[in-house]
Amino acid sequence: MSAPLRVAMIGNGFMGAAHSQAWRVAPRFFDLDREPEMAVIVGRDEQKNAHLAEHWGWQEAASDWREVIARDDIDIVDIVTPGHTHAEIAIAALDAGRHVLCEKPLANSVDEAEAMSRAADRAGKAGTFAMVGFTYRRVPAAAFARQLVREGFVGKVRHVRADYLQDWLVDAESPLTWRLDKSKAGSGALGDIGAHAIDLAQFITGENLTRVSGTLETFVTERPIVGERQGLSGTASDERGQVTVDDCALFMASLSGGGLGTFTATRFATGRKNALRVEISGDKGAIAFDLEDMNSLSLYDATAPADRQGFTKVLVTDPSHPYMAAWWPAGHMLGYEHGFTHQVRDFVTAIAAGEQPTPSFADGWQVQRVLDAVERSAGAGSAWTDTTS
Amino acid sequence: MSAPLRVAMIGNGFMGAAHSQAWRVAPRFFDLDREPEMAVIVGRDEQKNAHLAEHWGWQEAASDWREVIARDDIDIVDIVTPGHTHAEIAIAALDAGRHVLCEKPLANSVDEAEAMSRAADRAGKAGTFAMVGFTYRRVPAAAFARQLVREGFVGKVRHVRADYLQDWLVDAESPLTWRLDKSKAGSGALGDIGAHAIDLAQFITGENLTRVSGTLETFVTERPIVGERQGLSGTASDERGQVTVDDCALFMASLSGGGLGTFTATRFATGRKNALRVEISGDKGAIAFDLEDMNSLSLYDATAPADRQGFTKVLVTDPSHPYMAAWWPAGHMLGYEHGFTHQVRDFVTAIAAGEQPTPSFADGWQVQRVLDAVERSAGAGSAWTDTTS
Amino acid sequence: MSAPLRVAMIGNGFMGAAHSQAWRVAPRFFDLDREPEMAVIVGRDEQKNAHLAEHWGWQEAASDWREVIARDDIDIVDIVTPGHTHAEIAIAALDAGRHVLCEKPLANSVDEAEAMSRAADRAGKAGTFAMVGFTYRRVPAAAFARQLVREGFVGKVRHVRADYLQDWLVDAESPLTWRLDKSKAGSGALGDIGAHAIDLAQFITGENLTRVSGTLETFVTERPIVGERQGLSGTASDERGQVTVDDCALFMASLSGGGLGTFTATRFATGRKNALRVEISGDKGAIAFDLEDMNSLSLYDATAPADRQGFTKVLVTDPSHPYMAAWWPAGHMLGYEHGFTHQVRDFVTAIAAGEQPTPSFADGWQVQRVLDAVERSAGAGSAWTDTTS
Amino acid sequence: MSAPLRVAMIGNGFMGAAHSQAWRVAPRFFDLDREPEMAVIVGRDEQKNAHLAEHWGWQEAASDWREVIARDDIDIVDIVTPGHTHAEIAIAALDAGRHVLCEKPLANSVDEAEAMSRAADRAGKAGTFAMVGFTYRRVPAAAFARQLVREGFVGKVRHVRADYLQDWLVDAESPLTWRLDKSKAGSGALGDIGAHAIDLAQFITGENLTRVSGTLETFVTERPIVGERQGLSGTASDERGQVTVDDCALFMASLSGGGLGTFTATRFATGRKNALRVEISGDKGAIAFDLEDMNSLSLYDATAPADRQGFTKVLVTDPSHPYMAAWWPAGHMLGYEHGFTHQVRDFVTAIAAGEQPTPSFADGWQVQRVLDAVERSAGAGSAWTDTTS
Repeated sequence: MSAPLRVAMIGNGFMGAAHSQAWRVAPRFFDLDREPEMAVIVGRDEQKNAHLAEHWGWQEAASDWREVIARDDIDIVDIVTPGHTHAEIAIAALDAGRHVLCEKPLANSVDEAEAMSRAADRAGKAGTFAMVGFTYRRVPAAAFARQLVREGFVGKVRHVRADYLQDWLVDAESPLTWRLDKSKAGSGALGDIGAHAIDLAQFITGENLTRVSGTLETFVTERPIVGERQGLSGTASDERGQVTVDDCALFMASLSGGGLGTFTATRFATGRKNALRVEISGDKGAIAFDLEDMNSLSLYDATAPADRQGFTKVLVTDPSHPYMAAWWPAGHMLGYEHGFTHQVRDFVTAIAAGEQPTPSFADGWQVQRVLDAVERSAGAGSAWTDTTS
Repeated sequence: MSAPLRVAMIGNGFMGAAHSQAWRVAPRFFDLDREPEMAVIVGRDEQKNAHLAEHWGWQEAASDWREVIARDDIDIVDIVTPGHTHAEIAIAALDAGRHVLCEKPLANSVDEAEAMSRAADRAGKAGTFAMVGFTYRRVPAAAFARQLVREGFVGKVRHVRADYLQDWLVDAESPLTWRLDKSKAGSGALGDIGAHAIDLAQFITGENLTRVSGTLETFVTERPIVGERQGLSGTASDERGQVTVDDCALFMASLSGGGLGTFTATRFATGRKNALRVEISGDKGAIAFDLEDMNSLSLYDATAPADRQGFTKVLVTDPSHPYMAAWWPAGHMLGYEHGFTHQVRDFVTAIAAGEQPTPSFADGWQVQRVLDAVERSAGAGSAWTDTTS
Repeated sequence: MSAPLRVAMIGNGFMGAAHSQAWRVAPRFFDLDREPEMAVIVGRDEQKNAHLAEHWGWQEAASDWREVIARDDIDIVDIVTPGHTHAEIAIAALDAGRHVLCEKPLANSVDEAEAMSRAADRAGKAGTFAMVGFTYRRVPAAAFARQLVREGFVGKVRHVRADYLQDWLVDAESPLTWRLDKSKAGSGALGDIGAHAIDLAQFITGENLTRVSGTLETFVTERPIVGERQGLSGTASDERGQVTVDDCALFMASLSGGGLGTFTATRFATGRKNALRVEISGDKGAIAFDLEDMNSLSLYDATAPADRQGFTKVLVTDPSHPYMAAWWPAGHMLGYEHGFTHQVRDFVTAIAAGEQPTPSFADGWQVQRVLDAVERSAGAGSAWTDTTS
Repeated sequence: MSAPLRVAMIGNGFMGAAHSQAWRVAPRFFDLDREPEMAVIVGRDEQKNAHLAEHWGWQEAASDWREVIARDDIDIVDIVTPGHTHAEIAIAALDAGRHVLCEKPLANSVDEAEAMSRAADRAGKAGTFAMVGFTYRRVPAAAFARQLVREGFVGKVRHVRADYLQDWLVDAESPLTWRLDKSKAGSGALGDIGAHAIDLAQFITGENLTRVSGTLETFVTERPIVGERQGLSGTASDERGQVTVDDCALFMASLSGGGLGTFTATRFATGRKNALRVEISGDKGAIAFDLEDMNSLSLYDATAPADRQGFTKVLVTDPSHPYMAAWWPAGHMLGYEHGFTHQVRDFVTAIAAGEQPTPSFADGWQVQRVLDAVERSAGAGSAWTDTTS
């Protein structure tokens, strides 16, 4: 094994826990050509950050990301801060010659995403690479879906139905966290979870959304101001503040191959906790994925004899499935965090090979253009809006 | 029991079989205040019609619907012909003093539907009633869903996700039947199955769709001309003709109570045979219905303790459920045709009581306005379009 | 069409409703070579029986079954009385030259079943046929399962797991109906529902259970005496009586092909209403059936590529599936009663062709021997007991 | 935090990977009172062991377990070797004053298990503790099931249906691994997976199996001798050897509370990969668990209104569920390995508190007596056999 890859992680929220676990675990299950080292965790609250450094297993805690990315002993910068900070950090890190893994959505605006993408292009020419963290691509069932489409299993794609359904805002008294503040989060359900639905739909089909017609809605416009941030939803106080992002986004889309998409991203789907569902309908077959049942994939082979046709629920836990040979025997499940572990595996493997990892910042920029087109369409009475302009 | 209700059924296609079964069976399981008699079946092809009269158990076969509706011994006219004939027959029958049960969609245009609705209003004042055949309201699980919403189970409705997914046109060589001919069918997936999704969503929520933004798509624009009609899809010939209706309709909708709806009606959802699905998300609970699993209803009680929340799959076969006391012990399933049997039960019960049955022609007209608004929106770049204008 | 087949139905309980529906409906959906006529219904309570004659559509009501089976205008005797009366009626009817359809279990003892089977053999030589009513064989998914096994889909059978799970006795205060009285019902869960599980397992695999090791249990030994019979469970009174049948039966079995079976029949499976489940595991594939999801069948093809293997849920509603061409388009469901309709279709078809229908009384006798062997094994400390002795 | 707990793991097969991951991850997600240190991994093949030490993250590799357990710097001995070695290692380790975590089944015979249990009792008096690794108790859904039963949710237990279904031996050419060799594995499906089903059934109900009637079967008696061990199933060679363990075990059981159990453990359940299923039916409710759907638990509340009763599928991912507050937001899944992580958490917590962890060796001995009783019953024609003798 060559020299280790020393990682600095900027940010220490919920995503930081998932990334830490991935950096720790990936080299234990996959034979990586370069071993990642959990070097530095960066957070503004020094006490909290020091605690998390120890708890999550980082060698050092630091508070100034600028200093950290300037250090020569850092190879990778892993950005898990809120979206409005991504552009500045990522561009600086790339310019400093650090490989960058950046959480999704890439940025809070198309302009930022474009700048990041251009910075990544520049860096890439010098062998410094950037990747955006659409981890659900790395759920084995989703990766298998991509493989099947590529092999022609579904044929010509007619429909994509992609929903990301959550329900943590159903309660009108659920507090106002940073995720409901446009200045930090950029957008609401659309950018947070809709971005995943868009990326996954594009990834699995291998097609782009070329135009969209959408609408955004904020069902509950005022919520209790959060006293102290705790977990995903925080805790409430008496004061109320304005919700400045969407609670849900609905949109229709044209696919580059001629099919039609429908998308729902919402935090008001009562009873659905984390239901990212993508169903692809083609003229040869269909594929259905549901993140709430993430270890399986449903396949429909429309070329089978009529009396045998039906959805086959494949447990995607066989060594023949993507990523699975590294894990447990068939029938033993993986969980949420394994997508992050696979992301580390793919990112490190690409870097070690001197190749561009995917999804690139350009891919992230493209998703950002779709998000932007949905917002513009919503602002224009759901008029169909190109994603390329 | 008072005098029987003598029924004349106009039309003898697939729907005729379902209606015949319903007229035959309903009085055997329900105590009806007036017994229906299967008097006359009307069809243009005399030989076929005579055969079906015997096969399905009608006392007489006739070929001229005008003569039949003029007969004093006919109490009910049951219209199961294609949509473009509904208005003329229904209005004439009502004017002749016959109660009318008319298949959905009520008509092929808003104007026709309005004329029918006005004719029904006139007739209703004289105690002659009209009903439109949205039979899925009579699936016990759907009726139970309506009851639960009325009782407040879901609270304030935020989302309605209603899909009607079929796949019988996925094969581009599947033939051109009358259902793909706008002059006969009026519309494609939108009117044929989308109408059911709209009616069911409105019925269960007790709310109307007030405006829509939608799009229509015809994926396969030319198909083999059908030699002879057989079953739902017919058989193919060499010649090709134009598909003049939509293969699929997608639309978003505002609900009268402030919620948002998304609707898909398609004949290209590979692997989905008859998946009419409606999910209602409210601030107290959620309800999910799927016609492919029609004997159950999924309920989510958001007011239950956090660790007990989940979707409860209720087998809607208990005597306490709508319609079920008349049938078998709990756990014994009903099928597609039972919705029609319940429709006869409800229609006859209302007539015997001298009351307006539901859904009325006015309800059918309202659905027609929604269908029309979707078409107009689709023609105007998916601009939001009022359903009331 | 040749002369009609005039039917006399002996008995008018819950099964009478199901059989009446079947006699009425079968000729409307299937082209039968001889048309059944609902001639006479026989019941001891004359008033109730007259009411049911009208309600269910029988031409006549009668109270003495002996008189009825002696009538020359009766072709078929349909026996839907409790099990302790089957032998006497069936043998007399066969001896009188009437075709006999007899509800399951064939009898309350092996001796009775043997006598019936011998009577049927004698009658068969004269062209008079007898069939036992294991209707679940006629659920399309079960018939399709049989077809698949016959075609070699599962290969060598290793396991049969067959359960019939109900829960209507979970409540210890649920009343003492005739089904809990050994003198009438013969046995409890074992004979009532276990018989179905045995027949279905043998039917689908095409193998017999050759020996069994089982146990019977009565969890609640005393129950309120039922005031008046109503529905399946009756209503309670203050007095208590002894439960003289089993609440549940568990047994293991050897299959004639070398596989192993496990069987559970219980009325104490809380939450399971009518869950007759059969799963066949073979060296080439597996098949799983569940009566609570009766319109589908799950198939596992162990010869498929490793990454595509999974259970395929086939909606058994395609015209290519058994019985389905007579009904609705693909995706439209059948219910509980359709098994009875198919039974009439198969029975009448065999009679019209002068052929022995299946399952024969000999098949019913074989099931009875299995039931008897389970009881004997249970009485002998679960010692393995041959079903052939 | 007090002094770390230095761990020596004996064995380096598939279980070693799972345990290594658990030791590494547990302190990162749970606040443990003492931090485990991955000190030594012990394996006979020095080269392989050295490689795994590095790969899995152990500080040292060693080849002689006797030397290792004698070391004063070792606090915990974690035994993941085949069953025939458990007794010797565990007793020596306990006698040497090391806490012991031992994989299941505890031993290959009741005598060994008894000796181990007595050694654990002796050690326990000196504050040295032993635990047996029935990790599935630590799947949150299983722990939640236990909690519900304890709270009275199911009431009086009538039925336990517990199956552990795998299919990796369906192919008669699948090779002869050590798991099929009685001298190493002790027993086949019975001890390997049946032990889990027994433990889980007893754990959830809080009752013991008091007597059993069972049978064992070896469907394929000769298999290709494995060239070199690889993964769970190995690779094949030309020579054939005798399978000396059971392919499947079926048994019935009496529960200490008066209910009845049925158990199946098999490696021939085609299509079922890792289906450990336990369903508890009581007079107040039912609970169903399936390891192939491990993030959910199905609950049936028989005290709910009749029309609302049904199985509620609870996603056991809420912070209110056992272990879940340490992990991700609701709706984010855990996998197979998390049960091991929770096991480390519970083991370390008990040791730090100076308390006996569960399941104790006495619990493991009790399971061993059940396994033994099943074998004896199988050898005695399935005669009912006490588990206490």
